[in-house]
Amino acid sequence: MPQTLTVALGARAYPIQIGTGLLSNPDLYRPHLQGAQVMIVTNETVAPLYLDPLREALTEYRVREVILPDGEQYKTLEVWNWIFDALLAERFARDCTLIALGGGVIGDMAGFAAASYQRGAAFIQVPTTLLAQVDSSVGGKTGINHPSGKNMIGAFYQPRAVIADTTTLETLPQRELSAGLAEVLKYGFIRDAAFLDWLESHMAELLGRDADALAYAIRRSCEIKAEIVAADELETGERALLNFGHTFGHAIETGAGYGNWLHGEAVGAGMCLAADLSARLGWLTESELERVRRLVASAGLPCAAPNELSAERLIDLMAVDKKVLNGQLRLVLLRQLGEAVVTAEFDPNLLCETLAAHAF
Amino acid sequence: MPQTLTVALGARAYPIQIGTGLLSNPDLYRPHLQGAQVMIVTNETVAPLYLDPLREALTEYRVREVILPDGEQYKTLEVWNWIFDALLAERFARDCTLIALGGGVIGDMAGFAAASYQRGAAFIQVPTTLLAQVDSSVGGKTGINHPSGKNMIGAFYQPRAVIADTTTLETLPQRELSAGLAEVLKYGFIRDAAFLDWLESHMAELLGRDADALAYAIRRSCEIKAEIVAADELETGERALLNFGHTFGHAIETGAGYGNWLHGEAVGAGMCLAADLSARLGWLTESELERVRRLVASAGLPCAAPNELSAERLIDLMAVDKKVLNGQLRLVLLRQLGEAVVTAEFDPNLLCETLAAHAF
Repeated sequence: MPQTLTVALGARAYPIQIGTGLLSNPDLYRPHLQGAQVMIVTNETVAPLYLDPLREALTEYRVREVILPDGEQYKTLEVWNWIFDALLAERFARDCTLIALGGGVIGDMAGFAAASYQRGAAFIQVPTTLLAQVDSSVGGKTGINHPSGKNMIGAFYQPRAVIADTTTLETLPQRELSAGLAEVLKYGFIRDAAFLDWLESHMAELLGRDADALAYAIRRSCEIKAEIVAADELETGERALLNFGHTFGHAIETGAGYGNWLHGEAVGAGMCLAADLSARLGWLTESELERVRRLVASAGLPCAAPNELSAERLIDLMAVDKKVLNGQLRLVLLRQLGEAVVTAEFDPNLLCETLAAHAF
Repeated sequence: MPQTLTVALGARAYPIQIGTGLLSNPDLYRPHLQGAQVMIVTNETVAPLYLDPLREALTEYRVREVILPDGEQYKTLEVWNWIFDALLAERFARDCTLIALGGGVIGDMAGFAAASYQRGAAFIQVPTTLLAQVDSSVGGKTGINHPSGKNMIGAFYQPRAVIADTTTLETLPQRELSAGLAEVLKYGFIRDAAFLDWLESHMAELLGRDADALAYAIRRSCEIKAEIVAADELETGERALLNFGHTFGHAIETGAGYGNWLHGEAVGAGMCLAADLSARLGWLTESELERVRRLVASAGLPCAAPNELSAERLIDLMAVDKKVLNGQLRLVLLRQLGEAVVTAEFDPNLLCETLAAHAF
């Protein structure tokens, strides 16, 4: 039996199902499908592994698929348009359903396509990476990249269901498992010091793909995310806390060129930079900062931006971040471990020091 | 003093201001602008005429503009992306405001860009054509075309205000004035037989750009549209009535190639086709059908599809329409003059007869 959480968004509330072997279970899809037409959006890596098992759950429907190239560098307007080409070639109507089968890139692109196709089709997330299961498939943020910045074009659009089959993590490359752990660590850093303790003592099991440890980490992560999203769907306040490490991280991703760093890797380094600035503000002790870095490193993640990215270039890239308000850069920083704040009240010189010192 | 209507959409309610000389009045914009950054989206025809007057109203803000080519054939994904290029080149933040200055194409593209930029920026409509003032600027439908169909990619996204300066109609080409009158006639056909009588007796003044006649026609049109939109924002029911003539019209527009027929011209012909089918169903008398055609023709609009479009090709194009539900084509037809219904309950042979007979 899957574990079920609910994202409490009133008329747009939806379940997150977590468990093994969920992919092929028709009962999990049926209540959320409208019409008879289903378009599966996936990529060339995931399709050979999981397209057939998913199709088994959908034999009652007219199912088509569109297979995109794999990687953040393809999260573009041009590739996004392939989804519309496929929908229109098959003459899919407004009452069709899009299913995202894959990681965060697939979920973001398929979700934004569902939001935009004929001004709104139904949408189901079937995340197959740890990162997508704990983060990107939950909460309704969808979008694509622009050469000048990540996720600059998109929509808030909630899925009708999230089906997280943990069996799919068995085929996940180790580097992507680590990238997913970056977001898991994030929930501990911003909200739950006890979860941080748990992660510290279970990191080896997580990296070894112990099923119970992974299921607990996913569940706790989704609980925290669902709670924050339910309180602030459109990110007018509290939800911004979920961007801990992301303003630094997006700058690293963009600066390194999409596809070179995984999103989770950039977030890992970004969290270390945000913690570094928090320490310079006197909010974290040196030993707490050390603990952040050790946790990030223990998950197999980088703790610093690449050397070739200068502080000036990073500042430049951070200035287009979505958290800029009235021209002021706002950052998510740590008041203490387990408690984050969004603030523009920091000495810009300290930020420069953090960025200049990033090759620790 | 402008006349003010309100589109009653709860937290998303907004005013429509109608009158002369509104373009340069800062008081109409100030309450609806957020942040300090304003991006005016306009086209190369409108910019030389009205960009400077609009800028006069915005001297307190950091104003930039992006000027698109003029015409339905440019309502594409590629040209839409120019707006993001401009926003990001100027490092505009999420709390910026986009102002659409132009006709329906500009309003649709700028509105969808506002909906999507960083997942939602503020948006104001400043329509400069009759069609945009009576129809496309009100109600929150935004989007772009796909080679396979009109407005297939888009969002429901409400503006914060609509500022309809009737002075701008003085420079409108006669062909576009007629195209706008197609939508004005539509409101009479679907909802208000008395307005139809008024239009019949005032068509000469409207074509002669009599300011009072135009102001009345715009106001009555916006009243009807605002009422229908307030009752059904996301087009789950009644709002579909506003598509009277549009399923036929979109097929004509796509079939003729975007940019060859104006949207309003295609809607004019489409309304005649829809009335023809209504007559074949026994809902309109021959003389009522004649009256529809006469009214459309009196506004300077075509009453039939182009001869080179076969009935088969039109059927084909209509099959991708957004009003297809569960594979069934639904059409807006006239029960009587002043009363429209959405229905899939018609003999497909009668539709074929209508399309085959379209060169009346």
